Amino acid sequence: MAKSRPTSSKTKSSVKGANSRGGAALKAAPTKKSGAKKYVYFFGGGKAEGKGDQKELLGGKGAGLAEMTNIGLPVPGGFTITTEACAEYYEQGRKFPEGLDAEVEKALAKLEKVTGKKLGDADDPLLVSVRSGAARSMPGMMETVLNLGLNDESVEGLAARTNNPRFAYDAYRRFIQMYSTVVIGLSKDEMETMLHDLKHKLGVKNDTDIPAESLKELCDDFKAFFQKKTGKSFPQDPMEQLWGAIGAVFGSWMAEKAETYRRVEKITGLRGTGVNICQMVFGNKGDRSGTGVCFTRDPNSGENVFYGDLLINAQGEDVVAGIRTPIKLAELERLMPKANKQLYEVRKILERHYKDMQDLEFTIEDEKLYMLQCRTGKRSPAAAFRIAADMVKEKLITKEEAIQRIAPEDIERLFYPVIDPATAKDKLKKATIATGIDAVPGAATGQVVFTAEEAEQLAHSGKKIILVRKETSPEDVGGMHAAQGILTATGGKTSHAAVVARGWGKCCIVGCEGIRIDYNKKQFTAGDTVVKQGDFVTLDGSAGVVYLGELPLVKPELPEAYNTIMKYVDQARNINVRTNADTPYDAENAIRMGAEGIGLCRTEHMFFDTEERRLAIQEMIVADTVEARQAALAKLLPFQRDDFYGIFKAMNGYPVTIRLIDPPLHEFVPHDEPKQRDLAKRIGVPFDKVKHRVEQLHEANPMLGHRGCRLCITYPEILDMQVRAIIEAAVKCKKEGVKVLPEIMHPLVLDKKEFQILEQRTRKVADAIIKESGAKVPYLVGTMIEVPRAALMAGEIAEAAEFFSFGTNDLTQMTMGLSRDDAGRFLPDYVDEKKAGVFKDDPFQSLDQAGVGQLIRWGIEQGRKSREGIKIGICGEHGGEAKSVKFCVRVGMNYVSCSPFRVPIARLAAAQAAIEAKK
Amino acid sequence: MAKSRPTSSKTKSSVKGANSRGGAALKAAPTKKSGAKKYVYFFGGGKAEGKGDQKELLGGKGAGLAEMTNIGLPVPGGFTITTEACAEYYEQGRKFPEGLDAEVEKALAKLEKVTGKKLGDADDPLLVSVRSGAARSMPGMMETVLNLGLNDESVEGLAARTNNPRFAYDAYRRFIQMYSTVVIGLSKDEMETMLHDLKHKLGVKNDTDIPAESLKELCDDFKAFFQKKTGKSFPQDPMEQLWGAIGAVFGSWMAEKAETYRRVEKITGLRGTGVNICQMVFGNKGDRSGTGVCFTRDPNSGENVFYGDLLINAQGEDVVAGIRTPIKLAELERLMPKANKQLYEVRKILERHYKDMQDLEFTIEDEKLYMLQCRTGKRSPAAAFRIAADMVKEKLITKEEAIQRIAPEDIERLFYPVIDPATAKDKLKKATIATGIDAVPGAATGQVVFTAEEAEQLAHSGKKIILVRKETSPEDVGGMHAAQGILTATGGKTSHAAVVARGWGKCCIVGCEGIRIDYNKKQFTAGDTVVKQGDFVTLDGSAGVVYLGELPLVKPELPEAYNTIMKYVDQARNINVRTNADTPYDAENAIRMGAEGIGLCRTEHMFFDTEERRLAIQEMIVADTVEARQAALAKLLPFQRDDFYGIFKAMNGYPVTIRLIDPPLHEFVPHDEPKQRDLAKRIGVPFDKVKHRVEQLHEANPMLGHRGCRLCITYPEILDMQVRAIIEAAVKCKKEGVKVLPEIMHPLVLDKKEFQILEQRTRKVADAIIKESGAKVPYLVGTMIEVPRAALMAGEIAEAAEFFSFGTNDLTQMTMGLSRDDAGRFLPDYVDEKKAGVFKDDPFQSLDQAGVGQLIRWGIEQGRKSREGIKIGICGEHGGEAKSVKFCVRVGMNYVSCSPFRVPIARLAAAQAAIEAKK
Repeated sequence: MAKSRPTSSKTKSSVKGANSRGGAALKAAPTKKSGAKKYVYFFGGGKAEGKGDQKELLGGKGAGLAEMTNIGLPVPGGFTITTEACAEYYEQGRKFPEGLDAEVEKALAKLEKVTGKKLGDADDPLLVSVRSGAARSMPGMMETVLNLGLNDESVEGLAARTNNPRFAYDAYRRFIQMYSTVVIGLSKDEMETMLHDLKHKLGVKNDTDIPAESLKELCDDFKAFFQKKTGKSFPQDPMEQLWGAIGAVFGSWMAEKAETYRRVEKITGLRGTGVNICQMVFGNKGDRSGTGVCFTRDPNSGENVFYGDLLINAQGEDVVAGIRTPIKLAELERLMPKANKQLYEVRKILERHYKDMQDLEFTIEDEKLYMLQCRTGKRSPAAAFRIAADMVKEKLITKEEAIQRIAPEDIERLFYPVIDPATAKDKLKKATIATGIDAVPGAATGQVVFTAEEAEQLAHSGKKIILVRKETSPEDVGGMHAAQGILTATGGKTSHAAVVARGWGKCCIVGCEGIRIDYNKKQFTAGDTVVKQGDFVTLDGSAGVVYLGELPLVKPELPEAYNTIMKYVDQARNINVRTNADTPYDAENAIRMGAEGIGLCRTEHMFFDTEERRLAIQEMIVADTVEARQAALAKLLPFQRDDFYGIFKAMNGYPVTIRLIDPPLHEFVPHDEPKQRDLAKRIGVPFDKVKHRVEQLHEANPMLGHRGCRLCITYPEILDMQVRAIIEAAVKCKKEGVKVLPEIMHPLVLDKKEFQILEQRTRKVADAIIKESGAKVPYLVGTMIEVPRAALMAGEIAEAAEFFSFGTNDLTQMTMGLSRDDAGRFLPDYVDEKKAGVFKDDPFQSLDQAGVGQLIRWGIEQGRKSREGIKIGICGEHGGEAKSVKFCVRVGMNYVSCSPFRVPIARLAAAQAAIEAKK
Repeated sequence: MAKSRPTSSKTKSSVKGANSRGGAALKAAPTKKSGAKKYVYFFGGGKAEGKGDQKELLGGKGAGLAEMTNIGLPVPGGFTITTEACAEYYEQGRKFPEGLDAEVEKALAKLEKVTGKKLGDADDPLLVSVRSGAARSMPGMMETVLNLGLNDESVEGLAARTNNPRFAYDAYRRFIQMYSTVVIGLSKDEMETMLHDLKHKLGVKNDTDIPAESLKELCDDFKAFFQKKTGKSFPQDPMEQLWGAIGAVFGSWMAEKAETYRRVEKITGLRGTGVNICQMVFGNKGDRSGTGVCFTRDPNSGENVFYGDLLINAQGEDVVAGIRTPIKLAELERLMPKANKQLYEVRKILERHYKDMQDLEFTIEDEKLYMLQCRTGKRSPAAAFRIAADMVKEKLITKEEAIQRIAPEDIERLFYPVIDPATAKDKLKKATIATGIDAVPGAATGQVVFTAEEAEQLAHSGKKIILVRKETSPEDVGGMHAAQGILTATGGKTSHAAVVARGWGKCCIVGCEGIRIDYNKKQFTAGDTVVKQGDFVTLDGSAGVVYLGELPLVKPELPEAYNTIMKYVDQARNINVRTNADTPYDAENAIRMGAEGIGLCRTEHMFFDTEERRLAIQEMIVADTVEARQAALAKLLPFQRDDFYGIFKAMNGYPVTIRLIDPPLHEFVPHDEPKQRDLAKRIGVPFDKVKHRVEQLHEANPMLGHRGCRLCITYPEILDMQVRAIIEAAVKCKKEGVKVLPEIMHPLVLDKKEFQILEQRTRKVADAIIKESGAKVPYLVGTMIEVPRAALMAGEIAEAAEFFSFGTNDLTQMTMGLSRDDAGRFLPDYVDEKKAGVFKDDPFQSLDQAGVGQLIRWGIEQGRKSREGIKIGICGEHGGEAKSVKFCVRVGMNYVSCSPFRVPIARLAAAQAAIEAKK
C-alpha cells in the first residue's frame, strides 16, 4: 500500500500545486478550529453512515446513496464529503477545513477494504468517480470526474484484470481528458479535436471503434498536451488526483453558471455542494454492461409503468451526450433478464420506501446492477395528479400526502395554453423579439393592433388579435377582452392590464420596455424588428417572451385525477375560496373552477361595458350639481341592477361582496381633445367645461387621491345609486326564489367615523327598498382594509363593520410606499439576488408577510377583539398565490378570493396550509 | 307671595304657551328619571354652592360668579342652572329635565330671602337678569334677558322705591323689548323703529332724554305690538317670564350662529350652556351709577396697570352697543372715590386668587360696586409674555406656570408681519378677491408676477414681488425665495410651495381655487377681478385671504419678556429642538431661533441654487452610463461640499442630519419643449434623448415611485458623491478646529437589507476619506422612518441604523393613503365638522396620533429594543406643531426638528409637555 499510495504529508504538498483551477490549498485555515465536526460519511457493504433525510448536509445525491445503501439496494461503495466542508472551504478563503484530509483517508481505507481493491494499485486498482451534489438538484451545473485512480501503472493492471486493454485505455484517456479540463481547466475543444483527428486518421466513426493501441497513443498525446500547457507532467499520484478533483467540485459551486442557475431558479439558503467519491462501475465493459436512466412511473402521463432508456456498453456521460440512440427499458428483459429482474426489484423497493415516483440512474457491469443515484422524479403537471391519485388508491400514501404532492404551478400549467413544447428551440430563439414581465401565464397568438376599438372590430370579424398598448386604461377593457393576448410597454404585474387580464386568465405581458410603440405609424419596433399592425406575434405569458410570427399552441387537457385530487383538497381545507368576478360570465366560470362566492365584484368595470354606460358615467362626472349627477346616475341604475341580478343568479346563494366605486374619476374620462370634443357633443355640454373638468381631475398621486369611499363621501348620490341597484337586484332574485347574500363593501376606508357615515347611508337606502318590497333580503355592510391606517384602527372600525376584506394590492402599495405602476424601474433590482436582493419575492405577487403581514395580523386580532366572529377575507391578487393563501389560513381568515383561474390554486394552497397546521 | 307669584303647577301651564321661540315645554320627559342630580347652584350672601373649577358644569360665567362670591367679592345674588340641564333639555327633545322647576323655585326663594325682595312684588320687586354661559367663552353668540320681573304692577313699585319713574319705565320698556325679541322672536328692527320714532317726535337725541311719561306710553305701545304679533298679551306673570327666558337661553345654544362659532373656533365637547339668574343691579340709576369692563393688566402691552372703560349712568348693553363714548377707568377716582377704591381692592383679590390677568364686568349702583363677571382676560401675544414674566417676578406664579400660560399661537404671532390691525374692516372686505388655504402665516404685499425668473429679476431690481403660480416645483425655488409672498392656485398645506415657504417663514397661500391663472396673458382672474402682472396684491397668510392692492403691514417687535420666558422654557424641556435647514443662511437663522442642531438638511434644494448646479444635476439625470453620471456628479461635488462646509460652520458642533437625494428625478428636469431644447443644447445631448429621458421619468404615482434611497440603490454613484461631499466638508472643518457631527440619513428605507446596502457603501466611502485625511471625524449613519413598513420593521432596521428620524409627512401620506398634493379636493370635508368631520385636525398639520401615532410608538419601541439608546427624532412638518411635539415628548423621542420659524413653538411645546408629564 505504501508503494502505490503517498503518505498524507506528501499528498498535501502535491495537491497544493495541482489544484490550480479550484485555487484551493489543502492547508487548513489556522483561524477556525473545526473540532468534533464530521466531514465525511461512508456508505458501502450494505450500510451507510448517512441517511436519506440528511440532504442539507450530504447533498441530494449523497443522501440518496446513503439511503439506497441502507435499504439494501446494490450501490457501489463510497463516501460523501459534506456541504458543510464546502461552506468552510469558502469561509476560509478556499482552504480545505482542518481534519478533512484524515477523514478522507480513513473513508478511503474503508472503501478499499469493502471493495478489496486499492486506489492506484498496479494490479487491481480501485477507480472512483468524484461527483458534486447539492441539497437541491442543479443538473449539469457542477463538475464530475470519472475513472479517477488511473495512472500509467494502474491502467495496465486494469487492462490485465479485465482482459480488455481497449476498455482500460479508453477509461484512462477519458480520465486524462476530464481531469485536464475539469480540474486544471485546459481547453475541452482542443482535446476533443485530438480525439476527432485520431478517428479521422483511423477512418473510424465511433469511439468504440478505436483500437487499444491507438487509445494508448492518445493517452500519451493527451499527457504531452498537459505537459505543454501546464509545464507539469500529468499527476500519477492518485491522492493528488483525488484532492484535485475534490477541489474542482468545490470550486464549481461558485462558478458563474452555477450561481446564475441558483439565481434563476431562486435556490437560496444552501451551504455548498457535497462531494461524492464512489467506486467506479463500468457500463462500457461490453455487451453485458450498460447504463441507463429511468422513472418508476411515466413522468409524462403519470401511468404506473416503468419508464426509461438505456445504452448498452456505455458510460453515463454517453447517455448525457446523446450521441447514441438509447434503447427502451422494455428491451432489457430480452438482453439481460437477470439485471432486468434486479431493476424491477429495485423499482418496487424504491416506491415502497420513498412512497413517490423515483428518477434513477443505474449501471450494469457484467450483468450486475448498480444503483448510482435516485431522487424524486420530475413530472408533468398531469402526471403529478395521476401519480398522487394512483398512490392513494394503492394505499402508498394518504389523501393528505397526495395533496402535499401537488405544486401550485402544476395546476397553473394544467389550465393555460402553451406554445407547443415540440417547437424547435432554434425556432423559438430566432423568433424572440422582446422580453417583458410575465403578468399572466399561458400563450397567445394573433395579429397586432394598437387600439382597443380596432381589437374589438377585428375580433368580431373572427380574427385573432394581440392588443399592443403603451399601457391600458378602463376604456380599453372591451378591446382587451376581445383580444387573445395583451402586450404593454409599461406597467408591472399589478398594472391595469395585468390585473384585468389575470381576471380573465388571458395571456398578458406587461412592462415590455424593449418595444417602442408608434401609434401614428401603427407599428412598434423591438430592436431592429419593425412589427406593423396586422403582423402576427405570439406571446408566452408564462415567460414574458414576445415572438414574431404565429407559433403553434396546445391546450393541456384536464386529467381525471385532477378531479379526484381536488375533491381531497376540498375535504382538507378549512377556509372558503371565493373569486373576484365582475360579470355573470366570470361568475359562472368561477363556479366551475370551484369558487364558493364572490369576494370582490368591482362595479366600475361595468361602466365600460357599452358606450351607453360609458357616456352615462362620463356625464355624471362632468356634472356640476347634485341634480345633474343624479340624473346621469339614474341612467346607470338599470344597467348596474341587471348586472347584479345576473351575478346573484349565477352565484345562487353564495355570498357576493360588491365593492362600491373605487378608482379616481379621471380614469373614466377621455384625456385627448378629439375624444373630449366627442363626449361634449354627445352629452350636450360645452367642450371647455369637459376639458376643464378633466384637468381638474388630474392628480399628482391618484393612488392616494380622491378615490375609493372618498368619492361617496363627496358625492353620496353615487352610493345611493349603487346600493339601490344592488338591493333592487337582490329583491328581484328573492321574489324569483333565488337565494342572495349581498355584502356591500366600501373601499379605501381609513377611519371608523368615515365608515359609519357610509354605513348609515347604505343602510338607509337599502332598508327603505327592502321595506317597500316586503321581501326579506339579508345583507352585510363592511369594508376593505387596504389603507394601513384602517388596519391600525381595525378594532374601532370593526365596531361598525360587519366584515373586513383585506385589499392587499393597495395595502402593499401604501405600506411599502411602492406604486405598482412605477415600481418596474427599480423593483426588479430589489428582487434580484444578484443586485440588491432585498426581497425574496415580488411583494405584489407573494404577500410581504414580514411587513404587510404584521398589519394584517394586527387588523384581524383587533377586529375580532371588538366584533367576535367578524367575517374576514382577502381580495387582493395575493388571494390566488399559494404562499400568501397559506399565510391567510395561518392568520385565521374566513376566506380568500382571487381571479377565477386561480381558484383551484387557492383551494390547493388552503388545503396544504390546513394539513401543515395539523403537524 | 301667593298673590304676585303663580303656583308651580300654574307656572308649568303658562310657560308652555309662552315659550314659542325656544320651543321648549316645561313638562319633564317621562322617559328619563334624573334622580339625585342637582341642576341649580345658588350664590349670594357671601357664599356659593358652586366653585370656580366647575366650569364644565356651571359654565364659565356661573363658575366665575360662584368663585367671586366665595372669595368675598361683591356679587349680586343669584343661581346658575347647569349645562347638564341644558344637555338633558336637548336629549329629551327640548324639554326641561324633571325636577328643574322645583330646584329653580327653591333657589328663587333663597334669593328673595337674601335680597329681601320678591320677584313681581308690587312694592319692592326683585328684578333679575337671565344670561347664558358655556364652559368656553362664546361672546355675543347667545341670549340675555335683563330686568326680568317687571310687569304693570311691579314697575310702579320700582318707580316708587327708586323715586325715579323715568328709570323704572325705561327698565320696563327695555325688558319688554328684550323679552319680545329674544324669547318670542319678534322683530328687533320694528321695535327699535318705534323707539326711534318716539325720540323723533319728542325731538330728543338720547334715550335718557325721553321723559317717564313717554316711556310709559312706549311700554304700552310695545305691549300692543306684542299683542298684535302674538295674539296674546305680554306676560305679566314673572314666573312665566322667567321660564320663557331660561328656554330662550337654552334655545340659543343650538342657534345657527352659535353652532357656526363653535365650528370655526373648533370648540367641541361642550354639553350646553348654563343659565345664570342674577339679581339686577342698575348702572343707569343716575350719575352715582355706572357700568364698566376692565382688565387687571393692560391686555395689549401686558403692563401691570389697571385698564378699562366705564359708562356713567348706563347699563351693560349700552357699553356693548358702543353708542356712547366711555370714560377711562382712571377718571373713576375723581367721580366716585369710594367705588374706585372698592374696584382696586377687587383687582388685588382677583389677581391673588386667580394668579392671572382677569377681565371683569362690573356695575356701580348708587356708588356701590357689584361684580357681574370675571374671567381670564384675552391678551395680545406680547402681553401674554409680559404678564407671565411679570407674575413670575411678583411670585404670583412659578416659572412652569408661566410656561403653561403661553399658547403656540402667541409665539407665531410675535414673529410674522401682519396687516396693520388699524386697517378699516370695510376696506379689507372691499379689497378681498379670493380665499385659499393658509399655508404659512404672516402677511406680504407686492406686485404680481407669474414666473420664478421674473420674480428673481424684479426682486433684484428692488421690487416687492408676489409670485403667483398654479403650483410650484423645485425649479421655482429661486423665484420663490426672491418673492415677498407666494400664491398658488392648487396644492395643500404640504404642497411644494407650502413646505418650501414654511421653511423660510415666508407668507404663502396655496390651493386658492378661486383664481384662474392665464400664463399667456400674464394675468389671473378672481371672480370678476382681473389682476395683471405688476398689479399689487396683499396676502394674509394667517387667514388665507388675498387682497387687491397694497395694504399697510406691521411687524410686531419681540418683547423683552419673550427672552425671559424662553429661558424658562429651555430649562423645563427635556428633549432637543433642531431645525430643518438647507443652507448656511437658514442654519444661522435657526440658531438665532434657538435650534440645537439640524434635523433635516435636504440636499436636493441645493441643486437649484444656481444655473450651473441645475445643469449639472440635469446632465447627471440624462446620462445613460455610470461614467457619464459620475462625470456630471463630479461637477456637483464642490458645490455640495461648500454648502455642507458652510452649514457645519454655522452649526459649530451641533449635530447635522443630512438626507441624501430624495425626490423623484423628474422633479429636476424641465417638462416643456423649449426648456428641454435649451437643456439639450447646453449639455450637448440630442434633444430627442433629453425628451425621451424626461418621458421615461414620468410616473403614475411619483410619491410611491423611484425616489428616496431607491435612487441610490439604482445609482450608487450619487450616494458616493454626496457622502464624499459631506465627509470632505467635515474633514475641512475639523482641520480648521470647527467641531462637526454629521449624521448621514437615507430616506424612504423600507427594509433592513436595503438599508444595509446603503449603510455599508456610505461607510466605505466615508471611512476611506477619513482615513486618508488623518482627521478624526465622528459620523452616524441612520434612516428616515417614513414608509409604514419601516416603522413595522424598525426592530430589524435598528440593528443596522444608528438613528431614526420619523418623516411624518410621508408616513402620514402612506399610512392614511392621502396625497398631500391631491387631498385638497376632499380633505377639507373630512376635517369640517359640519361635513364628514372624520378628523378633528388636518393630519398634515397635527399628527394623527391615533393612527400614524401607533406606527411611531411601535417603531420607537422596537427600535430601542434592538438598539438601546438609538437616537430618535422627527423631521416632518409636525415637528413644529405644538400638539404633535407634545406627542413626540410623550413617546420618548430625543428631539424634534422643524423649520427655523417654528423652532420657538417647538421649544415651548416641548417644555409644556415635560411639565404636563410631571403631573
